[in-house]
Amino acid sequence: MQAEIITIGDEILIGQIVDTNSAFIGKILNSIGVSVYQITSIQDDEAHILKALTEAENNADIVIITGGLGPTKDDITKHTISKYFNDTLVRDLSVTKNIERLWRDYVKQPMQQVNLDQALIPSKAEVLMNTVGSAPGMWLEKNEKVFISMPGVPHEMKLLMEYEVLPKIKAKYKRPFILHKTLLTYGIGESMLASRIEEWEDNLPEFIKLAYLPNLGKVRLRLSAKGFDEKIVKTEMEKQIQIVLPLIKDVFVGFENDGDLEVLIGKQLVNLNKTLSVAESCTGGKLAETFTANAGASSYFKGGLVTYATETKIDVLGVSQAIIKEHSVVSAEVAEAMAKNCRALYKSDYAIATTGNAGPTKGDADAEVGTVYIAIASKENVFSQEFSLGTNRIRVINKAINKALELFQKEIFKN
Amino acid sequence: MQAEIITIGDEILIGQIVDTNSAFIGKILNSIGVSVYQITSIQDDEAHILKALTEAENNADIVIITGGLGPTKDDITKHTISKYFNDTLVRDLSVTKNIERLWRDYVKQPMQQVNLDQALIPSKAEVLMNTVGSAPGMWLEKNEKVFISMPGVPHEMKLLMEYEVLPKIKAKYKRPFILHKTLLTYGIGESMLASRIEEWEDNLPEFIKLAYLPNLGKVRLRLSAKGFDEKIVKTEMEKQIQIVLPLIKDVFVGFENDGDLEVLIGKQLVNLNKTLSVAESCTGGKLAETFTANAGASSYFKGGLVTYATETKIDVLGVSQAIIKEHSVVSAEVAEAMAKNCRALYKSDYAIATTGNAGPTKGDADAEVGTVYIAIASKENVFSQEFSLGTNRIRVINKAINKALELFQKEIFKN
Repeated sequence: MQAEIITIGDEILIGQIVDTNSAFIGKILNSIGVSVYQITSIQDDEAHILKALTEAENNADIVIITGGLGPTKDDITKHTISKYFNDTLVRDLSVTKNIERLWRDYVKQPMQQVNLDQALIPSKAEVLMNTVGSAPGMWLEKNEKVFISMPGVPHEMKLLMEYEVLPKIKAKYKRPFILHKTLLTYGIGESMLASRIEEWEDNLPEFIKLAYLPNLGKVRLRLSAKGFDEKIVKTEMEKQIQIVLPLIKDVFVGFENDGDLEVLIGKQLVNLNKTLSVAESCTGGKLAETFTANAGASSYFKGGLVTYATETKIDVLGVSQAIIKEHSVVSAEVAEAMAKNCRALYKSDYAIATTGNAGPTKGDADAEVGTVYIAIASKENVFSQEFSLGTNRIRVINKAINKALELFQKEIFKN
Repeated sequence: MQAEIITIGDEILIGQIVDTNSAFIGKILNSIGVSVYQITSIQDDEAHILKALTEAENNADIVIITGGLGPTKDDITKHTISKYFNDTLVRDLSVTKNIERLWRDYVKQPMQQVNLDQALIPSKAEVLMNTVGSAPGMWLEKNEKVFISMPGVPHEMKLLMEYEVLPKIKAKYKRPFILHKTLLTYGIGESMLASRIEEWEDNLPEFIKLAYLPNLGKVRLRLSAKGFDEKIVKTEMEKQIQIVLPLIKDVFVGFENDGDLEVLIGKQLVNLNKTLSVAESCTGGKLAETFTANAGASSYFKGGLVTYATETKIDVLGVSQAIIKEHSVVSAEVAEAMAKNCRALYKSDYAIATTGNAGPTKGDADAEVGTVYIAIASKENVFSQEFSLGTNRIRVINKAINKALELFQKEIFKN
């Protein structure tokens, strides 16, 4: 059972937007045992769309198309799909009603003819009702192949995928069981890790594949197993994990299925009944955001401070001017004072602080671009570590976040 | 002059990572007049790679391949490219030296044979030196077509693209001039906007294309012009913009080439010689991060507070308990108090505050999920606005950021 995803839109090809839809679709199809053979991003152009549809029909059982169903003139997808199926467009009453409802209850702006014309769909298409937008999804079949077309607006596509497309695919096809397990490791390079687990890797059964995914100081090991017997797949996966875990014990931090490091930290803080606050300089709010992006953060995260300008470290966070003068604003001493004072201010059990220079210029600091200090304060203790994180601003910030999470994770899991 | 981008990696197809490389490559190629015909994401599989290379060779003049050049066993790209060119792998001395240097100066872990073997490249390939990673880029030619292969690690690919690939493409091909201008609009729907500018759109010259890119309350209008005479392209683009601007005056906020809204805001604050701080509840640090992600934020951004837990709004930000009790923590009154107190604490000219319920549950607040208040405080004034932003946590946060930027932009551009 294979699918191909086609995303339509010049904005993808010129790099104006990043295609996140395909990743969402790939993930959710995988979860129900449908493999994605290929993702193809193409132009808003009739000839190109027709060519891609023909090729996808040869490659895959299911063709999923997103993009190009909006009301405006740059959208030719619907007409081209109709042409591909030798079909004509007809007005669908249920879609018309849905559009009228949306305009009455939400849009509250005058309706245009182009909006109403979104109810025109190929006569052979089954409507997949889009309850949050005016462009409907469509399901078409041809020579045992299924074609699904959805608007490119991410949240509309996601709802259609979950509530319309998946149930229909599940009902139509018998699918294998697919299981992914991703092991997060920190602090060891890809090739070192590979040589450690080489023997284990060579002896993996045929139906389990291993991939290395390195990223900013962490390497994820992804195991993918596939088979029609769910029990065998699960048992063998578990067995292989039990073999590999002792080999990577010192660098293993958790499974990605459990969530990213910030989620593991959140769970541990809830287990320990402890709270956290953060004081950020160079990470500029991103550390707080990393925690608060996850639902449930309010059970352990009290809040944070972004003391970006040097004087705010003094005025708001109460770091002493003398410490800054003596050690510089990018220093272990300032990071530790920030963590300590933040913890006191927020009355939290722990505080994490960052101070550094993300670049591109030296700014208030005299430290080299890429130098970052991360401090952790607890009731008993405050300590810090210095990092040298390169010269690219965004990468310095992201690596500092990863380092802060890694350091804090070690602290709260140490017992 | 057309290019095709091929990204290799199962992690893309199963949705484990989002392919951001293609967007980067598309954008940078476009900037030098090379159009991207198609982006194709494929499996780590010999047959699939060979098929994609054959098709890309038919579609495009330049084929750019990323991914699959790491040291570990899941990487078969290099061998497959060699096979496609009927070639054999040979050890390259300059790459060997580069790897030895990286290990000596940066990695500082024992070198493995797999690392040294990254210096094996097809004999027909020209090396594109990767100074920050062990996998080299490669440049191969076949029947007047160019094939470029780069590692998938984003920052390695980016450096190779900028310093090795672009100069070689520029030297080899005569390219048309491509110009994009993107107009940001806020507060009007795609179809309303389309009907307003319909006549103008219908009269655009053949070589200027228009696209509508709607996203969370903003619609971007992208004009793309292409031609060999740079002067004509620029003049006509300017002329068309001068015609459309008066039609969208009330909803136009700036050009994307000038940067996103936060960048425009930053520039205006620097012009006005004013500073900003932020107090965040439901946006959890993301508003601060939105500003600090941009270099130069330190010239206007003083910092911010994340007062996530209710008691921190009282303890850290000094919002009165009585106000919270009377109006609830998600209210105009609390948002305004947060903004006012934040401004005072950070001694900034302006402050923006957010309080709301991003969901999925009601948390500390009794407000409906999706209700968000945004307040702006200046020396003269403090005001707020209520928004109802749906029920999806991440979308509520992102929309609140957009609304806050929009509101603040209106405030600082009003004179």
